[in-house]
Amino acid sequence: MNSINITEVIDKKKNGKALSTEEIYFFIEGVTNDEIPDYQASALLMAICINGMTERETYDLTMAMRYSGHNISFEDFGHTVVDKHSTGGIGDKTTLIIGPIMAAAGVRVAKMSGRGLGITGGTIDKLESIPGFSSFMTEEQLVEQVKTVGFADAAQTENLAPADKKLYALRDVTATVDSIPLIASSIMCKKLSSGADGIVLDVKYGSGAFMRDEDSAEKLAEIMKSIAYKAGKKCSYVISDMNQPLGYTVGNSLEIEEAVRFLSGREQSPQLRELIMKLCVEMYKLSDLYLIDDSSDSSTMKESDAEIINKLSGVLDSGKAYDKFKEFVSAQGGDLKFIKELESSEDYNSGYDGYKEELTYEDIVRLSKRKKKSPIISEINNKALITGIDAEKVGRVSLLLGAGRRRKDDEIDHGAGVLFRKVVGESISEGDVLAVFYTKKKRIIKQAERMLASAYELFVE
Amino acid sequence: MNSINITEVIDKKKNGKALSTEEIYFFIEGVTNDEIPDYQASALLMAICINGMTERETYDLTMAMRYSGHNISFEDFGHTVVDKHSTGGIGDKTTLIIGPIMAAAGVRVAKMSGRGLGITGGTIDKLESIPGFSSFMTEEQLVEQVKTVGFADAAQTENLAPADKKLYALRDVTATVDSIPLIASSIMCKKLSSGADGIVLDVKYGSGAFMRDEDSAEKLAEIMKSIAYKAGKKCSYVISDMNQPLGYTVGNSLEIEEAVRFLSGREQSPQLRELIMKLCVEMYKLSDLYLIDDSSDSSTMKESDAEIINKLSGVLDSGKAYDKFKEFVSAQGGDLKFIKELESSEDYNSGYDGYKEELTYEDIVRLSKRKKKSPIISEINNKALITGIDAEKVGRVSLLLGAGRRRKDDEIDHGAGVLFRKVVGESISEGDVLAVFYTKKKRIIKQAERMLASAYELFVE
Repeated sequence: MNSINITEVIDKKKNGKALSTEEIYFFIEGVTNDEIPDYQASALLMAICINGMTERETYDLTMAMRYSGHNISFEDFGHTVVDKHSTGGIGDKTTLIIGPIMAAAGVRVAKMSGRGLGITGGTIDKLESIPGFSSFMTEEQLVEQVKTVGFADAAQTENLAPADKKLYALRDVTATVDSIPLIASSIMCKKLSSGADGIVLDVKYGSGAFMRDEDSAEKLAEIMKSIAYKAGKKCSYVISDMNQPLGYTVGNSLEIEEAVRFLSGREQSPQLRELIMKLCVEMYKLSDLYLIDDSSDSSTMKESDAEIINKLSGVLDSGKAYDKFKEFVSAQGGDLKFIKELESSEDYNSGYDGYKEELTYEDIVRLSKRKKKSPIISEINNKALITGIDAEKVGRVSLLLGAGRRRKDDEIDHGAGVLFRKVVGESISEGDVLAVFYTKKKRIIKQAERMLASAYELFVE
Repeated sequence: MNSINITEVIDKKKNGKALSTEEIYFFIEGVTNDEIPDYQASALLMAICINGMTERETYDLTMAMRYSGHNISFEDFGHTVVDKHSTGGIGDKTTLIIGPIMAAAGVRVAKMSGRGLGITGGTIDKLESIPGFSSFMTEEQLVEQVKTVGFADAAQTENLAPADKKLYALRDVTATVDSIPLIASSIMCKKLSSGADGIVLDVKYGSGAFMRDEDSAEKLAEIMKSIAYKAGKKCSYVISDMNQPLGYTVGNSLEIEEAVRFLSGREQSPQLRELIMKLCVEMYKLSDLYLIDDSSDSSTMKESDAEIINKLSGVLDSGKAYDKFKEFVSAQGGDLKFIKELESSEDYNSGYDGYKEELTYEDIVRLSKRKKKSPIISEINNKALITGIDAEKVGRVSLLLGAGRRRKDDEIDHGAGVLFRKVVGESISEGDVLAVFYTKKKRIIKQAERMLASAYELFVE
């Protein structure tokens, strides 16, 4: 009589009732062991999607998925380890920059990253556009690199929250992605099993993000934070909008190049720098550099945010973070030759503005497998102010150009993507180059051009 | 751009929007052709279950499932053909009695019945407890028997609404059964493809029925009626409660025996007779015996309900319906020997009351494979009035005894079941026989006894 019946569990959630801890573990164990078929799992996911879950249920679901596989441990490490997670943005290369800054500042950062599915590549895909770079590491290698270099970025192993892996694949094809409890538990089960002591969340809202508005993003962030604390971890978050892609580039090797330009101080998108600094401050505050005296009841001598920013800006602007980036790339097998080539290239030294004048369709071939460039020329008659660039549409453009995967086993063109020449807040006139496409797929250029044009929101002056 | 994407269809229903006719046909065609996997179908079913469907959507779903397979035609038949459908009751043997009454009165009745799944056997299972009886007939045989005998009861062919068959199997295991649009469309697609001109619905409510209260039953009935009219058929309904099982018996051959007793006039549950007469009146009023002058604008000379009841009671009480039952059983290959044995048995002639005194556990072996009888003795100390017998629990008792199937390919014990010695409205005292179990499974008797005891609602005087 104590045995749980999955149909009764589904029925309960269908009727809007909260599932017990036992029922949630029963479901997740059944999914993990393939004892619950997909058609029952998807029915329950839909019921959760529509009827929601309490915070207690969301926590239970997170923990059940967390313990469906292996958990990495940084115990006996001697230092706090911090992780950062973004809920998916277009052109988000923050990890590539934040990891080196924090490590150079003395904060240990351990990241487990996924491959991209849907519109653009994930951080792993971006890093793999560096010749030789590998994200496959054993747990020992990961722990060792965090110890010696201060930053490591490993691909999620098959055994990290396998229940989440299965459910995520199912959610993708059953229209059950956009549910706060399902998103929160899916993110947090992986963060908790990755072993970091502190987790900083970058929760995005707007077109192209899970959450469409700031309130939902805040709600999702609060739930994830409460899960982390309940599980004995430190957590804080930054809410950031996606009224345009992050930085100047979208596409794997393009974003690596932008990260290099950023770290070297050659060119920094102010929007990207602002977000990076916000996230770095939160990470610093979860680390033992800041929290070491957390147990004392005095609030004496804690650094202010301004002091932290000052310290971290120094690390970035002095080139220490750039050196740390190179050390990190080398440590994971990446060939640094591409950085030397980049630094000596004409484009690099003239800044992105160097692209402006002389580009033709059949143009230079550079870093990685990037092949063709196609400049997108403004056709508007009058001057106009760019007030928004729909990030979701840009994501779809980059997918069309070859930068992302439609299916799990699709090949990515690491060189493909979009370079923005004009971003939100800038004025444009007829004949201006708005963006540059990089792609091997000549035939889709016109279609991609139309899509990108429809992504711009303009205010005609 | 015109192509429909199933994930988008699911998403639309998840967000509570109405699906277009094209989207509903796309879904049903995909299910029929196995192009839409179960996990997507079950997600959509759950979204329908929770967010509902408009009447237009429910009609579209019905028609899409109706045309997913073959449709039987009684065109060029010269007479209206009437069908009766019950939404599933415990101990419901009405078809076995109504078919012969109507056919003897001159109304053609064509039934397509299913096998039982869940708590008790379906009408086909009941009929198959008669040696030799077969429900497998071709469409031509069905039409011919309706013409010559006036009544036929055929097993649903594989090709009758195959989409419904698939979805029904999925609903059963994904807790998506109790949805008015899904129930209405599932019933009506089969009724419409069975070809009858008039459909009388017996919509049950209460424990053990799809609908728990009278209002929901009425709502379901109205939706099914409107679907029938929209599809060009006549339809009416009776709402009947299930505050106890129907008649005195639950179990396949037990119910055949009760039908024989009823038709022969030997013993008739007043509750069962009342429902049967209500349904017969509705069927008569949809037939050409009554509707023949429906096109004239005068309301002259239509028979009153009292006149119809009088006429049909005559058919029943004169033994004409009993003769028609034997003709029907013979026509479908059933051996009438069991009726002769029944008529000459002591139990039969003493009425069910004959069971009362002399029963021991190891008792007589009679009709079909029925083996053991176990009387359930009242243990209450004082006199009490029976105010209800939970039909769902009785269904579960009969399943435990062997009368039903848990899975599609389970074997049924045609002899198993429950005979009620005391029904709602009767008083009981200590030592009274409440019911008698028939089962081969001696070991579960105690468990079944406890379950049955919990089914009684008593008012202690």
